[in-house]
Order: sequence, then C-alpha cells, then structure tokens
Amino acid sequence: VSVHLEPDWERRRRIGITEAVYCFGKEPRQIDHVVGQSFASAERLMLTRLSRAKYAALAKETRTLLTYVESARMAFLGELPELEGDDRVAVVTAGTSDGAVARETELTLHFHGVGCQTFGDLGVAGLHRLLGRIGIIKKFPVVIAVAGMEGALFSVLGGLVGSSIIAVPTSTGYGVARGGRLALESALASCAPGLVVVNIDNGYGAACAALRVLRATTPAE
Amino acid sequence: VSVHLEPDWERRRRIGITEAVYCFGKEPRQIDHVVGQSFASAERLMLTRLSRAKYAALAKETRTLLTYVESARMAFLGELPELEGDDRVAVVTAGTSDGAVARETELTLHFHGVGCQTFGDLGVAGLHRLLGRIGIIKKFPVVIAVAGMEGALFSVLGGLVGSSIIAVPTSTGYGVARGGRLALESALASCAPGLVVVNIDNGYGAACAALRVLRATTPAE
Amino acid sequence: VSVHLEPDWERRRRIGITEAVYCFGKEPRQIDHVVGQSFASAERLMLTRLSRAKYAALAKETRTLLTYVESARMAFLGELPELEGDDRVAVVTAGTSDGAVARETELTLHFHGVGCQTFGDLGVAGLHRLLGRIGIIKKFPVVIAVAGMEGALFSVLGGLVGSSIIAVPTSTGYGVARGGRLALESALASCAPGLVVVNIDNGYGAACAALRVLRATTPAE
Amino acid sequence: VSVHLEPDWERRRRIGITEAVYCFGKEPRQIDHVVGQSFASAERLMLTRLSRAKYAALAKETRTLLTYVESARMAFLGELPELEGDDRVAVVTAGTSDGAVARETELTLHFHGVGCQTFGDLGVAGLHRLLGRIGIIKKFPVVIAVAGMEGALFSVLGGLVGSSIIAVPTSTGYGVARGGRLALESALASCAPGLVVVNIDNGYGAACAALRVLRATTPAE
Amino acid sequence: VSVHLEPDWERRRRIGITEAVYCFGKEPRQIDHVVGQSFASAERLMLTRLSRAKYAALAKETRTLLTYVESARMAFLGELPELEGDDRVAVVTAGTSDGAVARETELTLHFHGVGCQTFGDLGVAGLHRLLGRIGIIKKFPVVIAVAGMEGALFSVLGGLVGSSIIAVPTSTGYGVARGGRLALESALASCAPGLVVVNIDNGYGAACAALRVLRATTPAE
Amino acid sequence: VSVHLEPDWERRRRIGITEAVYCFGKEPRQIDHVVGQSFASAERLMLTRLSRAKYAALAKETRTLLTYVESARMAFLGELPELEGDDRVAVVTAGTSDGAVARETELTLHFHGVGCQTFGDLGVAGLHRLLGRIGIIKKFPVVIAVAGMEGALFSVLGGLVGSSIIAVPTSTGYGVARGGRLALESALASCAPGLVVVNIDNGYGAACAALRVLRATTPAE
Amino acid sequence: VSVHLEPDWERRRRIGITEAVYCFGKEPRQIDHVVGQSFASAERLMLTRLSRAKYAALAKETRTLLTYVESARMAFLGELPELEGDDRVAVVTAGTSDGAVARETELTLHFHGVGCQTFGDLGVAGLHRLLGRIGIIKKFPVVIAVAGMEGALFSVLGGLVGSSIIAVPTSTGYGVARGGRLALESALASCAPGLVVVNIDNGYGAACAALRVLRATTPAE
Amino acid sequence: VSVHLEPDWERRRRIGITEAVYCFGKEPRQIDHVVGQSFASAERLMLTRLSRAKYAALAKETRTLLTYVESARMAFLGELPELEGDDRVAVVTAGTSDGAVARETELTLHFHGVGCQTFGDLGVAGLHRLLGRIGIIKKFPVVIAVAGMEGALFSVLGGLVGSSIIAVPTSTGYGVARGGRLALESALASCAPGLVVVNIDNGYGAACAALRVLRATTPAE
Repeated sequence: VSVHLEPDWERRRRIGITEAVYCFGKEPRQIDHVVGQSFASAERLMLTRLSRAKYAALAKETRTLLTYVESARMAFLGELPELEGDDRVAVVTAGTSDGAVARETELTLHFHGVGCQTFGDLGVAGLHRLLGRIGIIKKFPVVIAVAGMEGALFSVLGGLVGSSIIAVPTSTGYGVARGGRLALESALASCAPGLVVVNIDNGYGAACAALRVLRATTPAE
Repeated sequence: VSVHLEPDWERRRRIGITEAVYCFGKEPRQIDHVVGQSFASAERLMLTRLSRAKYAALAKETRTLLTYVESARMAFLGELPELEGDDRVAVVTAGTSDGAVARETELTLHFHGVGCQTFGDLGVAGLHRLLGRIGIIKKFPVVIAVAGMEGALFSVLGGLVGSSIIAVPTSTGYGVARGGRLALESALASCAPGLVVVNIDNGYGAACAALRVLRATTPAE
Repeated sequence: VSVHLEPDWERRRRIGITEAVYCFGKEPRQIDHVVGQSFASAERLMLTRLSRAKYAALAKETRTLLTYVESARMAFLGELPELEGDDRVAVVTAGTSDGAVARETELTLHFHGVGCQTFGDLGVAGLHRLLGRIGIIKKFPVVIAVAGMEGALFSVLGGLVGSSIIAVPTSTGYGVARGGRLALESALASCAPGLVVVNIDNGYGAACAALRVLRATTPAE
Repeated sequence: VSVHLEPDWERRRRIGITEAVYCFGKEPRQIDHVVGQSFASAERLMLTRLSRAKYAALAKETRTLLTYVESARMAFLGELPELEGDDRVAVVTAGTSDGAVARETELTLHFHGVGCQTFGDLGVAGLHRLLGRIGIIKKFPVVIAVAGMEGALFSVLGGLVGSSIIAVPTSTGYGVARGGRLALESALASCAPGLVVVNIDNGYGAACAALRVLRATTPAE
Repeated sequence: VSVHLEPDWERRRRIGITEAVYCFGKEPRQIDHVVGQSFASAERLMLTRLSRAKYAALAKETRTLLTYVESARMAFLGELPELEGDDRVAVVTAGTSDGAVARETELTLHFHGVGCQTFGDLGVAGLHRLLGRIGIIKKFPVVIAVAGMEGALFSVLGGLVGSSIIAVPTSTGYGVARGGRLALESALASCAPGLVVVNIDNGYGAACAALRVLRATTPAE
Repeated sequence: VSVHLEPDWERRRRIGITEAVYCFGKEPRQIDHVVGQSFASAERLMLTRLSRAKYAALAKETRTLLTYVESARMAFLGELPELEGDDRVAVVTAGTSDGAVARETELTLHFHGVGCQTFGDLGVAGLHRLLGRIGIIKKFPVVIAVAGMEGALFSVLGGLVGSSIIAVPTSTGYGVARGGRLALESALASCAPGLVVVNIDNGYGAACAALRVLRATTPAE
Repeated sequence: VSVHLEPDWERRRRIGITEAVYCFGKEPRQIDHVVGQSFASAERLMLTRLSRAKYAALAKETRTLLTYVESARMAFLGELPELEGDDRVAVVTAGTSDGAVARETELTLHFHGVGCQTFGDLGVAGLHRLLGRIGIIKKFPVVIAVAGMEGALFSVLGGLVGSSIIAVPTSTGYGVARGGRLALESALASCAPGLVVVNIDNGYGAACAALRVLRATTPAE
Repeated sequence: VSVHLEPDWERRRRIGITEAVYCFGKEPRQIDHVVGQSFASAERLMLTRLSRAKYAALAKETRTLLTYVESARMAFLGELPELEGDDRVAVVTAGTSDGAVARETELTLHFHGVGCQTFGDLGVAGLHRLLGRIGIIKKFPVVIAVAGMEGALFSVLGGLVGSSIIAVPTSTGYGVARGGRLALESALASCAPGLVVVNIDNGYGAACAALRVLRATTPAE
C-alpha cells in the first residue's frame, strides 16, 4: 500500500486563507512531516489545537521552525506580518473561560495582517459592563462574539449593533450546556436578526469568516 | 375488570393548590366525568390545555357548569375570587407568540386570589423596551418570565432583578429551538445566579410555583 | 390584567434592518393588530412564514394594505424600493425543494434595496453544474448557499470561493436528515474555513446577515 | 491585543447575591488573578467547583487568603457571617452520592447568612424514611431537594409539602440517567404542581434561588 | 415479482403467546388478508392499535369476524376464554390518560385466560391514594404499573412491593416528557431494585411479559 | 449543618432483596462508613461497581470484613448461602466483553440463594451456537440475556423460548452503539413479544428482577 | 431575480443510474415542469415518494406521460425494460409494514433491467421461517434486507449469508424505534461483519447500491 | 457457575470472512485465551482495536504468536497471503487524521488476499486534488471512502464514480461533528444515489463489505 498526502498549498491563492493544520488527534510525527514539507516549499502555515504536551512531543527540528503560543494553543511557521491600517475587528467575550478561543481568533487575524481589539468579561448577567462599551464596539465593521453557557450575549449584541456579527459558541458550562451546543443553538435561534455562527470553540473559523467579510467588497478573481 | 378513579381532592388542603385537570389527550367523556364529580363534591377545579374544539365536544351539562377562557385554553368550575391585596407577581413576556402561556399563568394566579401585572413584548433584541420597564418590574417579589426561541430574556432579567424569578420556556421558534428545549436549557444554564425553571409552556406550573414562594413565610402546617 | 405590546420600530434606525413579524404560530388577529399599528405609524414591515391559508384568514383591511408573495410565504407593508447599484449577492441552491427559502432571501434583500442573482439546482451529485458556474459566482462579494439533506454544497463552495459565504440549511430530506439539522451541522463542521451559518430554513436571517456584511465598511454610528 | 477583564462587583448590591467564580475549566493563574483583585477591592468572593488538585495549584498567596472546604469543592474569601434567625431552608437528599452538591448548597446559604438543616438518604425506594421526617420538613418555608438517577423524590415531596420546593438534579447514576438529565427532566415533568428546577449539580444556584425566595417579601430597591 | 407472506401461526405453540397484528401503519386490505387467512386456518388472532377509523375501513366480511373494543384500540378473532382461577395480575395506573394502555393490557391477559384487577388514578402527587391500596396490591404475584410524565409511580411501587413489577411507560405528557421516553428512562434508572420495563405505550407487551412470569414455574417444553 | 444518613435495612424484609451499595462515584470513606454500620447491625450487604482500585483504597478494617470478587466488581459482607434446589436461571451472553455484567448477575443470585447456569458467546452472528443450546436453555423458568452492540440476541431468544426473559443491554460497542443505548432500545422494540428490560450494564438489577419472578407465586405478605 | 434549474441528465451516462426526482415536499407544478423537460429531452425518469394525492394533483398532460404504481409510491417516464438474465437480487423483508419500501426497491431494479425475488414476513421472532428459506436466499449475489423496529433480521442474515447484504431500515415501529433510527443503528452496529446500510425507508437507494455492486466487475470507464 | 466460550471458527467457511476479535474493552487475559485457542485449532485470526499498551500487556507467548501493526491498531495470527491478481479496491481518505482507519481497511483486505491502493488527503475543501485523481479512482470496482467532520467527500465521489462506494465515517472533528455521527449521517442522506455506509471508524467492516461485493458474482454455496 502506498499513501500519498498533500496539504492544500493552493488554498491561500484560491480563497485568501492560509492552510491550517488541526492538530488534535494527529500524531506528532504526522505534524513533523507537514511542517517539514511546508518549510521545504517555503509556505506559511498555522497549527491549531496544539496542546503544550503535544508541542513538546514534536521533533526538535520542528520546534525550531515554529513559534508556539500556549494561551491560544497555536503555532506558526512564518512571520506574523505588519498589521494593515486600523483595527477592523472587535472580539467580545462573555467570561474568562472563553479566553483560549478568543486568543485563537486574535492570532489567526494577526497572521493574515488584520488587527483587532478584545473586550473581555462582558457577560449579560452584569449588563452595565456591556452597555458601557457598546458605543465603541459598534464602530467596528466586524464583531466576533465569544460565549458559552446559554450564550445570551449574542442576542443582546445583535440587537444593539448593526455590524457583521459572528458568534463563536464555546464549550464552557456543564449539565444542559452540552459541551457548547446550547450556546450554539442560542446563537442560531436568536431573536436578533442576521447573526451568523461557526462551530463550537472554533476561534480559527470565526477569524476566517471575518477575513471573508472584510474582503467582501474586493472578492478574489 | 373494574377501574376506580379518584381526583386528588385533598390537594388544596395539603399543599394549598387546587386540583387541575390537564385536558390534552383526555377524551371529552373523561372530562365530563371529573367535572361532574367535582361539582357533586362542591369542589373547585381548573382545566388546562382545553382547546376550543374539545370544549365544544363536552356534554352540554358540563359546559353549563364551566367558565371557558379561550385565550388561555382554560376553564373553571367555581368563581374567580377577589384578589388579595396588591399585585405581587409580574409576568414578563418576550413576544406575542408567548401570549397563551402568559394567560394561563395569570388566570391560575387569579383563581388562587393573587393579582399580577403583565409586561409584554420585552424581548432583548430591542433592549431599550425592557430597560424602560425594569424599575417597575424589580419591585415585584415574584417575576415570571415567559420566552421562547433562545430565551436570552431570562439571563438579562436575572442580572437586573433580585426578586424570585421563575422562567417559563415556550415552544415558540423553529429549527434548533427544538420545541422549547433551547429556551429551557438557556434558563437552566444561565450565567445569572438563582433562576429557577418549569417545564416548556407550563404557565400553570409557574403560577403554582409563585404561590409556593408567596406562601414561603407562612408554610402549610 | 392589562397587557402592553410594542413592535421594535427602532430596529431599522438602530441596526439598519426593518422589523419583521414571524407569523407561524401567531393568530390572524394578532397579525392584523401589528399591521394596523405599523400602518398608523407609517412604518414599513415584513411578514415571514405567512401561509396562503393564514393570509386568507387576515382581516380584509389588512390584506388591502399588504403585498403577498406566496412562493416566499411573505407579505410586505410598504413599497419594494429601487435596487441600489449592481447585484451584490449570489444565491446558490442545491435543489428545487430549497426554492421557498431562496425566495425569502431574495425578497428580504430586495426590500432593503439590495439586488441578487440566483443559481439553482447546483447540488454536488452533478458537480459539473456547479463547476460550470463557479467563475461567475465567485465574483459576488456575498454568496448565500441554500441546501438540505447532507449539505455537501457548502464545503465545495467554501473551498472554491473566497467571498463571504452564508450557509442556509433547509429542512429538505428525511430519515437521518432530521429536519435540517444534518445540513446545519455539515455547514458548521465543514472542512472549508470561514463558512458561517444561520438557523434551518432561515432565508430571512441569511439576507439580514448579508446586509450586515455589505454594510461592514460603513458601520452604523 | 489588550484584554480587559472585570468581575461583576456590583452584583451583590444589584441583586443581593455575592459574585462567585466557577473554577472548572479555568487555569490557576486566572483564579489567582481574580482572588487578588477581590482582596484588593475588599470584596467577598466564593469559588465553586474547585477541586483539591486545582486548589493545590493556586499561588501560595492566594491560598493564604482563602478558606477551602473540600467536601463542597468550594473556597471563600471573607468570613462566614453569623446566621440570621432560625434555619429557614431544609436540604433533602436522596442518597449519599448527592452529598457534594448538598454541601455546596449549605455553604452558599451560610455565606449569605442563612441557616439550613439537611436530611440525607431519603430516597423513595425506602419510603418510610421520608414519611418519618415529612412532618418536620414541611415546616420550612423553602425546601431544596437533591436527587439523581430517576429523581422520584421530587414528585413525592411536591405532593406532600406546600413550601417552595427547588429541585437540584444530580449527575449520580449511569446508562439512561444520562449524567443527570433524567433527574432534571423528571423534576420538570413532575405530576406535583409548582416544583422549580435548576441546572444539574448546581447546588450553588439552588441556594441563590432560595435567597431570592426568602427575600421575596422585601425585594431589592 | 412474487411476494410470499406468512403469519407466525406456530408462535402460540412455541412460546405460549397468540400471534398479534400491530395495525398502525398497515393498510386495511393487508389486515383483511391476515384476518381471512387466520379464520381459514381456524387460528385465534389479536389486533392491536386498531383505531376506530381503520376498523371502519376494513372489509365488511372482516368486521363480521372480529370483536372490536374501541377503548383498548383492539380487536379479536376467536372467543375470550373463561378466566383461570384467581386474578393474578394487578394493573396500577397513575392517571386517567393512561387508560387506553391499561385496557390493552387487561384484554391481552383476558384473551390468554388470565384475570386482573385495575387500580386507577394512583399517581404519587397524591400519595395517600396509593398507600391506601398498597396492602391489596402487594398480594398479587405480578403488578403491571402504567404511568407517563416523570413516572415516579414506578419507584414508589418498587420500594413497597416484592412482587414481579412490569413498568409500562406511556406517552402522556409534554415538553421534556418526550413522548414517553422520560417515563421509560425513569423506570430503567429507578432506585428501587428489580423493576423491568417494556416499550412506551406497550400494554400488549406488558401482558405478554406477565404471561411469561406466571408460566415461569412451568416453562414450555 | 448536621446530616443524618441511614441505609434501607428494612428492604430485605419488605421486598425480599438485600440492600446493595452502588460504589461508583462514592468516596472510600463513605463506603467504609456504611460497611461498618452494616457490620455493627449484623446486616448482610452487597457492594456493586467496586473497582479494584477503589477496593484497595478502603480502610483495612473494611477490607477484612468483605469478600471481594474482581471479575464481578462486587464485594460482600456476610456469607454466600447454600443454593436452594435446582438452578432456576439461565444466563445467556452474546460475547466475551459482556462477562463482567454476567458475573454481577450470577453473584447477586447466589447471594440470595438462587443458582444459575451461564451460556457464553452465543451471539447471533454465529447462530448455530445458540441453536445448539436452545433445547437446554428453554427449560429454565427465567432466562437473563446479556448483550451489547445491536442486541439481536434478545429477539432471537424471545422467539424461541417461552420462559420469562430479562434483557440486560451492555455498553459493549462503539459509534452508533451509544454506550449501550442501542442494545437497550433493541430489546424494548423487539418483534418478539413479552421481553422485559433493565438499565444498561445492570446485572444486579436483572438478578433482582429474576428474584421477583421466582417469588411470583408466593408474594410477600 | 431569474432562477435557472437543470436536472442532472448526465447522471445515467456518468454513473449508470437514471435521474430520479424525490417528490415529497415538492409542489405539483415543480414536478410537472421536470417531467415536461424530461419528455422533451427524450430522457427516462423515475419519481419516488409520490403519494396518490400528489399524483392526482399533477397536470393532466403529466399524468398521461407517466406510469404510476401506488403500492411503491413511484411513477415512471419511459418503458420498463426487459430484464437481463437471471434474477440477481433477493429482497428479504421482516414484516408486512415494510412492503412499500420493498416495492420501491423492486421497481428501481426493474427500471434498470435487473430482476429480483422477494421473500416476505421473515422476521426473526419466528426464526423457522427464515431458516426454511436461507438455502435459496444465499445463492443470490446481492441480498437487500428490509426491516424496521429493532432490525434483528440484519444480523441473523449477515451471519448466515456470504453475499453482499444491503440493509434498508424502515420507519416501522413506535416509541424507542424512533422513526427507523433504531433499525438503522442496529444494522450499523451489527455483530455480523460486512453489512452495509442506506438511509431509513430508502428502497430506491438500496436498489442503486445493488446496481453498483452488480456492475463492480465491469466498472464505468 | 461454569461458563463456556467458543469463537465462531465456522465463520470463514460459512461467509468467507475470517473471525476477528474486537479488543477494545476486553482484558488481556481474555485475548490471550482466544489467541491460544485459535493457535491450538490451527485457525487464522485478526485482532482489531488493539492499542500499543494493551498489546504490551498480553502474555509473552501470545505476543510471540502475533504480528502487530501499530499504525492500524491490529494484530494477526497466521501469515498474510499472496495478493490475488490486480488491486481491486481504492481507499480514498479526506485527511491525515483518518489514517488509522484506512490502515485497518488495507490490512483486513490483505489478510483476505485482496490488494488495494490508497489515495490520501483528498478532502473537498481543495477539490482540485480529488479531480486530479478521479480518472484513476473510477476504474476500481470498489471504492472505500474514509472521511470525518462533515463528510462531503462521500457525495462528491458518489456523483463522479459509478463503482460500488462504501463510506466509512470517522470520529475526526469536534463540536457538532459528534464523534463521527455527522459524517455518518452525511453519507446516509447523500444526494448521490447508491452510497452505502458502515459504522463510525469501522475500517474492518468496510473491508468485509468489499469482500462481499467482490464475491458477489460467485456467492457462497
């Protein structure tokens, strides 16, 4: 049996988003292999869901090539670019537990040259905190909202802000929170019109969606 | 085969709540029977989830004994009592579709002598509406919140009001709203502490819970 | 008991999207009421999920005020505006059964002055059909993809087009399709990065999301 | 990227319940940070779901500030107050496995100055045990019932006691018990009227709900 | 295409239970066919879940051969036998809505020559009713318990009675009752040891299980 | 807070089944306590789901009092009695993985004086194995069938054997087997009439059900 | 808005299976349109899930072009071809209720020139019926098994027959049968190796899968 | 209690597939036993889902008898045979994480003398990769497709290839991917006709299904 594998190097040129490797469930040697291939081809690369333990299990050569950011569980092959112009994305989180997901979003944006500002701990149980910041938040063309548990933040934001809002449900919570499905469904069934949603804990996907929105007036050829 | 049936006439004396018959799924002749029994025993009785069509299918004698309120899908055997003192319950609803459930709550309270005020259409997608009323609402010792879809109203209320808050999720919505389960779970997993919840569309149960709360300083012997 | 209801007339000024009334589950007299209020306030209004039968059950005066479009299950109070500039949204559907949802999307866009082009019957089981059109589709800044069953269309589009892609899962299908949840989850878990998703059959929501994207470079004050 | 976090210090003044930090899923340094902030602001604080292992991983300074209670998986910043007047809450548990949840309830009440009595091992499979105590239990204005598995305790209590009853389903059980969802649903669908329910294993939430009930005759301003 | 069908006439001789035809979902002409075959072969036959409307749609000859009992949604081909000895089964139901299922159980037992007594309306919300009868019920070697909603009756019975207890969950209830699955799971996860369970609304199956128990000391050859 | 706990010592006298302690999720010191209490009261006791590791963590005194059987994950306080008369229960298992559950069944029966014979590895994928034994199996008044995965064994047995059949679904399997729920549902929806079912992996419960059946002709007073 | 639709006429030439239109959920005028297009292009066409009522609602011209087979809920445009060689597929069904699905399979095969033989009523509750036919069934290169409820037929067949076995779960059953999902999962988790499965009630899909198998030695270019 | 176990040695002769032992959940000594039995009977044997750790825990004698392949989590007793003729199966995988499942498929085929070729990393997010290989893939009589997440690969393949296609959903993914159930359902509900499916991660089962297909023109006696 001979097996042939090829990363999708064309992705960036086709849709403007750099190839990323989802590391959860992959073995270290598989990751070593794709990083090596990438380096040899002079391609940039992001690695997501890379735990500290798995990072430590990579080959020494691989680790030399990568920049690892533990708080986001991410690594990069290639430089973080200069940010282009003003920060165009606001990242709003409901609680401290949603931090790792927010970090993944911020870094994915940065890797593509887009700056953002993060507004933390704005869960609606203390509504005054969100209301105090809403004037700033609504000036961003894209708002990424990160929340777990019942996800009420999504609806309140959606009713106050006219920008493009991308909801990222997180797996924070227990019991009926069902690993993030409750927050996911709250965003989908929100009474506020025009919210859009990505998969649970998918900070990377939300950043990619923001990139698509920001490019929406100048689409790929 | 001989079958013996007996309504729980002792319920009112035991826990202070009048027997109610849940009519969905029961046949008209079964309802006729229990109403007749009740009347003969000089007991009061509430009937819930009694559709217009099923009410019309009851025996003429039964209908003569009952007062039917279509907007709440309820009927009563016995008089509605004078209300005792000030209104002590606020009923807050998110949207128009939640009306029948709110009606059921109001009438169950009234049947037990407790007055309430209803504040409708306060869904959080238009947050200014709720904020404009919150000063009045928070003065009630018990607040019953009625909402479907993603149920974000529960969390916002819970963060602003210190009273006893009883969430009634409703089956309003579609797709991931799953017939009210989403709103139910949102209330249970709310980031606002101390919310309590009853079954989907259970306006009757919420009123009974309010009766228990109001009696909490003078418990049954 | 006195109940006060108020539509969210401020919504359009706050977030740029006109108030819409979801009619499924509402009684005709409730719809009559809100249309009358709207007309009296000189506000525009959209009505969604309004079946032919329920439309016919509205008061005659109400029907005189509305324009009803059966294929989209929608009605309007107020004129459809002139479209602004070029068509900026592509609506791509997988099959004929997804038509009513696509109609709802098209009309919601039109009501807000945005034109679109629809590309139907492009399900991936006959991939040549999609590949034949992809050159045109990718030039639109926003692509709304409408598909039921297993929703494979979302992933294929996401890999070929760099625009903002909004997935609308539909309830088309049977058995494991679970009323649209399968297509919903396929969009959320797609291997193509940056797809975003709205609730099942929510053509109205997808259009609102597109409006938010198109406004993303000129956000609300 | 700069991230700003702020605990909801206003919560106690707004709704009469002290801020609590849910520690499951948070990293030790995050907990250290909030405890330090709290101490600096002279605010009281509760920490829930804090395992022995995570407590041990906190900074030494943090541990010096806290009182840790392993059987309840809780810690406190600030003194436990004198209890006000008579015990006003009965905590009833079905079995030994529900103990940690009951402990969390008791301590949360105590932290807010409310005393309680606990009645353990009263599962309905040995009904005589519950019947032997019911005379005492029904004299409490609030009863918190803690049960897992099929949760039959909730219904039996609800039929015998007229007080305010708050059901806390626990994750005790296996197979169809589904991590506490069965007990949760049993409480919600109970044939006994007016039961209310909190999330699975949420002893903290049940205590907060009891605080709201006890305050119901003297609501917050 | 030629299709060959054959009822399992040998079933009675093999396991002591007469063949029954589940009529829900079958077309009238299919039922006519099997009744005709049965009659020609001089076999007895039971028909379950046969609605009044479907019975009326059977061929006139078929109806002549059958005895139809609407309250149990059943029909019989062949005589009901004399009952053998004392009544050996108690049927205990929680509420009026569970009646049709109880009827199906009673008639299936009767058709096999076994007598039973039914005790209705013994739901645990009014526990005194059940306790008042328990002395009689526990003398039956087999107890069939029929209950919907949260099914708390099963656990209470299981703790008080040492006989063989067969739980029949019913689809009575709404919201989280999930069409009977809640009652089903409550019986399975009961804290009372040794309860056994049949499918939702399966009164026929419970009767068959009772027949197997009663025959347990004299098994089939 | 003072907590009072009492095992249900009356259970054996009330329903003929000895008290058992489900050890999963209990802490060693809780188990030590109940064993000590039991010993002091001269009561017999069974402990189920007691892993080797947890057994080892019990106090030395406790372990001295108990007999531990690892293959069944059980321990006993008190002697195993002499078996009464012939073996009256057949235990039939589908595969090797179902062994621990079968062991739990066998020992529970033995502890109550009832003997059984076990027939292993009779899954229907190799049907000749079951057919070769069916002549012996059908002579037992009670058959306990233990199977995971798709649970087809239950239906085949049910069609061939007229005895009382108790199905024990096990958590053997993966993917759609859903931790035993598939086998559970297969038993409940079986086309063979009169099967009864206990919770997943509940070998103890199946033995208790068998005890109830065997006692069915001589019920408790 | 202009919408362009095109059936996948190339399907037959590409993968050897004729285009089929799934009619459930489509409006009569949509079906009229595609049949007309098909006829104009001289293409053959199958229509599945076409109820008698919807067939009757088609335009008269459409009905003139079609052959309708009510027992299979199918219609055809174009002649049924001569069958090629021996019957190569056995269709085995568990019960009478599975008939419509079996009919759909038979006709789809016939439309593609492949003959089959159907063996009905072979559910495993009466195992002798299946064993009596197994000698004939195992000689067919492809066996399509159709069963609902617990689907035990799939495993028994899979253990006795070495041919290619395609399981079609049906929605026959109630309660835990969950509309066919139980039978579906039973087939997937079967202890018999190498069974394959199609969607619930998908008789058409099973026939297509059989066509792929039969062509497996002479694949498409 | 005496327990008798017997592997199904007749399986190979009956249906042409060698007995395999699923090792997950089995204890090392149980595996030692069956390998010893097999060796003594001169039977070949496959062991699936055998982790490196469990392999290491087998008795030394057992390990001497086996060939272990870690990348496939499999072991073999007996020689791998010469492959018969041309490779007749194509194994197509969507991503690197699906590798272990593909390895299990390849080895199971090889153990039965059938060769295959594997095409990796062909997920549809980079569609050009699949399109570049499709000309070769479609020449194989059987194609086994291995994919997790949303499983869009199945539908695209199904529309392009006329061979027998067996879908193997894998547990790759997170959130709504639900451990492989999403990919499973995508394959079942695919818009491409005639796909068949095996259980999640069941590479062994897919290979067995391929063996049945390849033998379909020469069925077992």
